[in-house]
Amino acid sequence: MILEVAERLFREIGYRKTTVADIAKALRMSSANVYRFFESKKAINEAVAERLMAEMEADLSAIVTRSSASAAERFREFVRALNGISTERFTTERRMHEMVEVAMAESWEVVHRHIARVDDMLCRLVADGARSGEFQVEDPMVAARCVHAAIIRFCHPALIVQCADEPGPDLDEMISFLLRGLGNSRTS
Amino acid sequence: MILEVAERLFREIGYRKTTVADIAKALRMSSANVYRFFESKKAINEAVAERLMAEMEADLSAIVTRSSASAAERFREFVRALNGISTERFTTERRMHEMVEVAMAESWEVVHRHIARVDDMLCRLVADGARSGEFQVEDPMVAARCVHAAIIRFCHPALIVQCADEPGPDLDEMISFLLRGLGNSRTS
Repeated sequence: MILEVAERLFREIGYRKTTVADIAKALRMSSANVYRFFESKKAINEAVAERLMAEMEADLSAIVTRSSASAAERFREFVRALNGISTERFTTERRMHEMVEVAMAESWEVVHRHIARVDDMLCRLVADGARSGEFQVEDPMVAARCVHAAIIRFCHPALIVQCADEPGPDLDEMISFLLRGLGNSRTS
Repeated sequence: MILEVAERLFREIGYRKTTVADIAKALRMSSANVYRFFESKKAINEAVAERLMAEMEADLSAIVTRSSASAAERFREFVRALNGISTERFTTERRMHEMVEVAMAESWEVVHRHIARVDDMLCRLVADGARSGEFQVEDPMVAARCVHAAIIRFCHPALIVQCADEPGPDLDEMISFLLRGLGNSRTS
């Protein structure tokens, strides 16, 4: 409940302008009561960021585990979803972006865990494709990390904004290039 | 001469702390005289950045045009040089980093032209490899831009610092992955 209200205030008035007192007031409780659950505004931001990342990861995980589709199809859909959710969050919601930037500067550990979970999901997808013969890779985790590093332009909050007007591969060109790097010869 | 002195001061005392008066003083001339050549400190920074990028591009261009090596070898060397120069500049020279960050925030056009020139060099390398049968690509410029986007973690000033402690592919793993994306079957 505290997190729902905090997230709403971060979106509406921005992370920096929101105080713990604002959050407490919106909840009709005292600041002291908020501090019983979260020791600082930074801790609230971390919990809000974790929640938002968990939402994104649930969507991504649903794609990975949908076994009816080929690994290449799921890979394509996974990268599109990662880019779609990131773009929506970081470009249309400017104030969300501020919250994320603060988390990246002050709470890298939270971001780091998210990166590791996305790596794990990509690794599972790549390993599925290797088992089915769709992909040819020596080490699925190395391949997954290459893919994740390669698409950073399409999912890193600051880069999505910075590269928005740069010429560059579009997402589908990049996905095709990566599928080829994974040894998926059916994709040209 | 103004640019040599400006660059030295930016390295020694930092971009933000250096004034046009400092630059003029080190040159034993008046600030007014400096302003005859550059209309602002921002213009000086842009010219210094252009010079540094031109140095890097000259090194990279020498690799591209060395026709005695195969395209795959030159590609490997090109990416290593791009990463090596960037890492040296942005991690060992903290004050250089400040200058670059200001250029990226305030003079994106200068950065944009550099990105385009690196794209062009990569495109030439990829096209060479396509001609010699080493690479299989449909559109060399699309492939070059995919490669450049994929290695952003290894050459973007902010990311080199931000990703320094993240697990991820090492540069050689990434190069092998990219060569495979370029259809270079000889690399595993």
